[in-house]
Order: sequence, then C-alpha cells, then structure tokens
Amino acid sequence: MSTQDASTADLFGLEPQAPSIAGQRFEARLSRLLIADGAGFATRDVGRLEVTLEGVPGDRHMGMSRPADSRVPWYPRGTPIRNCRQVTILALDELEEIAQRLGVAEVKPEWIGANMVLEGIPRLTQLPAGTRLHFPSGAALAVEGENMPCRHAGAAVGAFYPEAEGMDVAFIKAAKGLRGLVAWVERAGEIVAGSEVSVRVPAQKLWIR
Amino acid sequence: MSTQDASTADLFGLEPQAPSIAGQRFEARLSRLLIADGAGFATRDVGRLEVTLEGVPGDRHMGMSRPADSRVPWYPRGTPIRNCRQVTILALDELEEIAQRLGVAEVKPEWIGANMVLEGIPRLTQLPAGTRLHFPSGAALAVEGENMPCRHAGAAVGAFYPEAEGMDVAFIKAAKGLRGLVAWVERAGEIVAGSEVSVRVPAQKLWIR
Repeated sequence: MSTQDASTADLFGLEPQAPSIAGQRFEARLSRLLIADGAGFATRDVGRLEVTLEGVPGDRHMGMSRPADSRVPWYPRGTPIRNCRQVTILALDELEEIAQRLGVAEVKPEWIGANMVLEGIPRLTQLPAGTRLHFPSGAALAVEGENMPCRHAGAAVGAFYPEAEGMDVAFIKAAKGLRGLVAWVERAGEIVAGSEVSVRVPAQKLWIR
Repeated sequence: MSTQDASTADLFGLEPQAPSIAGQRFEARLSRLLIADGAGFATRDVGRLEVTLEGVPGDRHMGMSRPADSRVPWYPRGTPIRNCRQVTILALDELEEIAQRLGVAEVKPEWIGANMVLEGIPRLTQLPAGTRLHFPSGAALAVEGENMPCRHAGAAVGAFYPEAEGMDVAFIKAAKGLRGLVAWVERAGEIVAGSEVSVRVPAQKLWIR
C-alpha cells in the first residue's frame, strides 16, 4: 500500500492522505459454472456457456436492461435501468462462513443463484467495482460490486432447513459482505467450467470528500 | 500481512486491516452540458439532452457497445465490448491544473470532448467506479472511472497552441489523474444545463490480496 500521489493534492491544497494501492493481477479458477434457466431462483451446473453482451443466454438475469427493483429504491419500481447484474459470482469459503453464522450445515451456491463459483480470490465479495475477470476464450466480465443479501435468497436457503425459522431475514445479516458479487459481460465468448480466470483489479484510492 | 492466513482471518471475523470509508452523498452542479455531434472530437453546448440507456443521442460515443480500442489492449481491436464510456465528465479546476502543467493559458472542456462540466466535486477524476450521479428528472449516470489521457485529446489541445510542440504527448503526462471521468447512463431521462446533481459515492474498502 502506498500513500496518495502527493503532487496532485499539493497543487490543489487538499489533504494528501487518502490510502491507495496500485492495480493487482493474479490467476484464479472457475470451479463451477451454472445457469438459472428453470422456473425459480436456483441454478444448475453446465460445462460451458457462450455469454453475450446481454449476459447468459436463457438465464433469468439476462438482458442489457432490467426493471428497477427494491435494490435501487431511488428509481421508480419497474423503470428500465442498465443491467449490471447479469452474472452472480460466489466463493465457497464465504458460503461456509454464512452457514456457520446461520447454524446450518451448508449453503450451496446453486440454492442462491450462483452462475459462477470462483476459487483463489480471498474476500471475493470485497473485490472493488471495475475489477475485470478474463477467461481463456477472451470472454470477460466486469464486476459491479457486492451482491447485497435479500430475503428471497434467505428464503431459498430456509427451504432446505424447514426446522429453522426466520431464515429469510437472518440471511440478510449473516450474509452481509459474504454473498459474492454481481457482474456484467464486457466481452462475449465461451466460458468453460474448471478453467483459469485472470483477475485484474484496478488501482484503488479512497475518495474522501 | 501474510497472504493466506490473513484472508482466512478476515473471513472468520478477525479485524480486517484494509482502510475503508462509508458511502457519501452530496450535491454538486452541472454547469455545462455538451454534445459531440460534429465531425470530430470537439463538443458544443446544449441547454438540455434526453439521454437514453445508449447514451447521448447523436453523440459520437453513443451505443450499448463499442469497438475495443487501444485503451483495452487485452481485447483484439474492433471487438465489440460493452460501452462504459458513453459520457465524458470534466471539472474546471482540474483543467486549470492541466493548463498550468502544459504552460498554456487554458484547456477548454469542449476541446477534449466534455459532455458535462461539474462543479462542487473535489478531485473529480478520483471518484470511485460505481459512483452514481442523479439528475432532477430522475436520469442517472454511473461512473466507470478515470478517463486516461490519450494523444488524440492532446493533439486537440495542441491545435489551439500551434507554437507549442509535442503537445499531444505532453498532455498524456500532464493530464494524468485530472482528465475527468467516463460514465454510462443507468436511467434514461432529461438532463438540463445548470441543474443540481446528487452524487452518491458507494462505500469503499481497499482490496489487498
């Protein structure tokens, strides 16, 4: 970690203290690839997908735009907005932590709509917006950011633990910061389960007004 | 901090060391609104625009996708990629600093393709990816990030200072971190020059592998 480029701050007479870090690149692995092409929320494994700029063909989150929902309460519900939530990405270590917090044996990625399970990215959910994921075919995703846990996902987990009560609401708290990422397709192409993923994290600098 | 142990520790509730800051909201002002609807790079003032999810109708950067260029050398040139560069946003204080560094009287926003000039946002170019700009009509933009200075913009400035040499290349260095932002339209609507802009900066936390 380095401190902010002091020259810019000095010339504007502003405080030069914002923490920053240069861009980072490393390899990770796509351990599972899934699609939500059934009636509901759940996904199922596939060996490969041909993603387009609209997302995953046949997946419920496909589209260049989507209707505004309760995640973006500043837009009237149903208004078309650009779809930055085409692809749902999860990590197993984070799901294990959610399960532990909920006091259940496990939370499976396919229960809560995973399109991808990635291995080798510590604190996946914290990856900054703008991170790019490059696949061997040339296909690439761009990270929108943390997927905020909602009651729908909590209810989906609760359905597997009928003895537990209030799982839908408990999930919102237990999964905060651990429920993975949403992303959009930046470049179309083939994505194959089990392949490497090249992760490019942009330079970061805290912006403090 | 040592890689694997530290990430596991974070996940299981021990103190994460990465600097962070909560979301921020404040008001700024759209002092000028412009469109690139001529032959070249330059923009001209307009009183209002009706933006769509494709961007600014009639502007050269309009489109849901764009051909990959030298800014994204990891994609073959010309490959369609999602267009996150629909709107170019500048701040006058940053342009003044570029002019000073170049030793010229001024760098006008319309010379280097500004669609918007914003007032009241310190260190505009440093605003994090994912920042949203909300306009009174409900129209909204999402910030992709810093617009990296290129030779085309430098040459456009140089054309106004024919006595100066090598302005195209000098601009790349002088404008780094000061050339403003690129953004895309998240919600369509009217945007009016002179109006307020509500800025919503997401929570930030440095991600360090």
